Amino acid sequence: MKIKVDRQLLLTQLSYISKAIPTKTPLPVLTGIKFVVAEEGLYLTTSDSDITINTFLPLEVNDTQVIQIDSVGSIIIPGKYFIEIIKKLNGDNIEISTFEGNYVTIKCGRSEYTLNGFDVTQYPNIELIKHDNPIHLEKQLLKTIIRQTVFSTANSENRPVLTGVNFRYDADELMCVATDSFRLSKKLVPLNKLHEPFNIVIPGRSLIELSKILDDSHESVDVYLANNQILFQIGNISFQSRLLDGIYPETKEFVPTTFGIEIKANYHELYNAFDRAALIARDQVSNVVKLNILPEEGKLLITANSPEVGKVEEEVQVEMISGGELRIACSALFIIDALKAINNSEVIMSFNGDMRPFILRDQYDETTIQLIVPVRME
Amino acid sequence: MKIKVDRQLLLTQLSYISKAIPTKTPLPVLTGIKFVVAEEGLYLTTSDSDITINTFLPLEVNDTQVIQIDSVGSIIIPGKYFIEIIKKLNGDNIEISTFEGNYVTIKCGRSEYTLNGFDVTQYPNIELIKHDNPIHLEKQLLKTIIRQTVFSTANSENRPVLTGVNFRYDADELMCVATDSFRLSKKLVPLNKLHEPFNIVIPGRSLIELSKILDDSHESVDVYLANNQILFQIGNISFQSRLLDGIYPETKEFVPTTFGIEIKANYHELYNAFDRAALIARDQVSNVVKLNILPEEGKLLITANSPEVGKVEEEVQVEMISGGELRIACSALFIIDALKAINNSEVIMSFNGDMRPFILRDQYDETTIQLIVPVRME
Repeated sequence: MKIKVDRQLLLTQLSYISKAIPTKTPLPVLTGIKFVVAEEGLYLTTSDSDITINTFLPLEVNDTQVIQIDSVGSIIIPGKYFIEIIKKLNGDNIEISTFEGNYVTIKCGRSEYTLNGFDVTQYPNIELIKHDNPIHLEKQLLKTIIRQTVFSTANSENRPVLTGVNFRYDADELMCVATDSFRLSKKLVPLNKLHEPFNIVIPGRSLIELSKILDDSHESVDVYLANNQILFQIGNISFQSRLLDGIYPETKEFVPTTFGIEIKANYHELYNAFDRAALIARDQVSNVVKLNILPEEGKLLITANSPEVGKVEEEVQVEMISGGELRIACSALFIIDALKAINNSEVIMSFNGDMRPFILRDQYDETTIQLIVPVRME
Repeated sequence: MKIKVDRQLLLTQLSYISKAIPTKTPLPVLTGIKFVVAEEGLYLTTSDSDITINTFLPLEVNDTQVIQIDSVGSIIIPGKYFIEIIKKLNGDNIEISTFEGNYVTIKCGRSEYTLNGFDVTQYPNIELIKHDNPIHLEKQLLKTIIRQTVFSTANSENRPVLTGVNFRYDADELMCVATDSFRLSKKLVPLNKLHEPFNIVIPGRSLIELSKILDDSHESVDVYLANNQILFQIGNISFQSRLLDGIYPETKEFVPTTFGIEIKANYHELYNAFDRAALIARDQVSNVVKLNILPEEGKLLITANSPEVGKVEEEVQVEMISGGELRIACSALFIIDALKAINNSEVIMSFNGDMRPFILRDQYDETTIQLIVPVRME
């Protein structure tokens, strides 16, 4: 195998696949990049067993030759070292060749590296699943779904299924839900009937890594489902993740649809007030802030109290209040996370009493709900 | 005590004194900021026992009133919380007042904080030493001295005196030396006889923190020495550090002055070649790279070899070579540190054989020397 390849384009491919290089693995070959030179271009693959990423760089990009192939072939190159070397090299073109089996030489300008690689036969045979009937999702929509839900997944492995986001499709709607049982994020996406119904749980970590690969262009992503795997095809990048086993809990009845008390407030005023109150609240177990809705004064009072540090009182003038007075307590960090997932706008907070879950949402977006379970007031 | 103070100016003062707030201390009151409102303005003091920083903010800055005093007084305010609160508050003016002894209230806009403080009598009585005969040093020169020497101080406490930089003044020259006994940095500064001779060791950590306070303006710093303490007066900021006990080793004979082999090379080519070679070298004990000077080919060959990872060969065309061929081995990271301390320019490397210390210096700066002890070639 011997090729010359454009350094910047190679770096771009490496930035995509680097996300699936494991730092710790019982299988050392997985710390490598599967480097395959074929007649039509360069294929790179990485996998940490949960996530597999594959990219393809063709011989020409925008009518310019970017790869010159002297001979085809394949090798596993140590991932971390290879990426750092390509980053630091000084030159536009890099010559990569193999010799004596599993050694790879990287030449650029007056620099020459030889790395110990692995034979490709040692790399696990990972099948990327593709079929004729993918679901088409807008890239930006997929990114938004992840941003608005994934933070509510559970960190702990007590209930593994809660570490993922539930994607459920039926009839004409995709429902995406994440919950750690103290809070819940829910996003509804209208979707024409293009696919059989499905009900799957995608690991939160996979979605976070996927999100980093989704750039801001407006192309669509093809999604393939099969064999407990999900494959996202984004241009020349294939991103495959295993799905989580287990039945995702029903959450429909948990989310209230009618509310006794509602307020509307400016996003920034609300965010900044909670962000500051959290300075004191975070010194406590579960970061508790108290909310006090005062309809007659048209304001929301946010207080936190730490016997060790001190206390804080933040006042937010609200733009609308319906219903009576309410005192309720909850995690300041949950509110901050929920607000971060809401687009800059007016925020509606809806309550049903001091011990019932309450929700936050963007005034103009009925499809996304952030639900928080309150804690008992002392 | 009750004042109103400009938030931005208070933040600037806090950024100076924050460097001496200890994260761990047996004396909790030291995690606080001594906040003293006097007729003439605001004094802030912090101390971690080794370093003490004091700042003064006058009532007016550039003919604009920046502090409004309702009543004078003093209190110890929890440092970390106070700084974060002032950073996050939304408004130009902050009202700070004490009540019922050790409580302090911070008001700004619709935010109100109450923090538990300490009584000033609990704060250790730290004397800042000043006398009539300070040494004047240019701020930029002091910054350069620190940058070019402090990285060579020892990290380990085996020989505590080596964790500091030796400042020795005699006749008309200030000599600054740092060494961890594997490398040495030396800076000579011509200084008119303005002071009695001295020979002190300033803790490396103190110098690093001091350096962060020295901005890029061209004022001079007044340096006061007494009682095993050194005080740097930078405008309204007083920065005091304890000195290290013990006799600093004599290093004069250790630094060679004549050399058998010299090369001159471009700074960037040299730096980049070592920076890349370090990728492979750092996988080894002591990050060893081998240097091979080849006079006939007019080049320096840099190689590193890691049985696990692979090997690298970097070629640097040198602009001047005197003396014969040489092979020598040393830490790649020591060379990179030394090069970082040299200004962008042509670099001279001077050798006396494969087991003798060698030096790096800026072609145009005879006053600064970076010495490295080689390691044995296998």
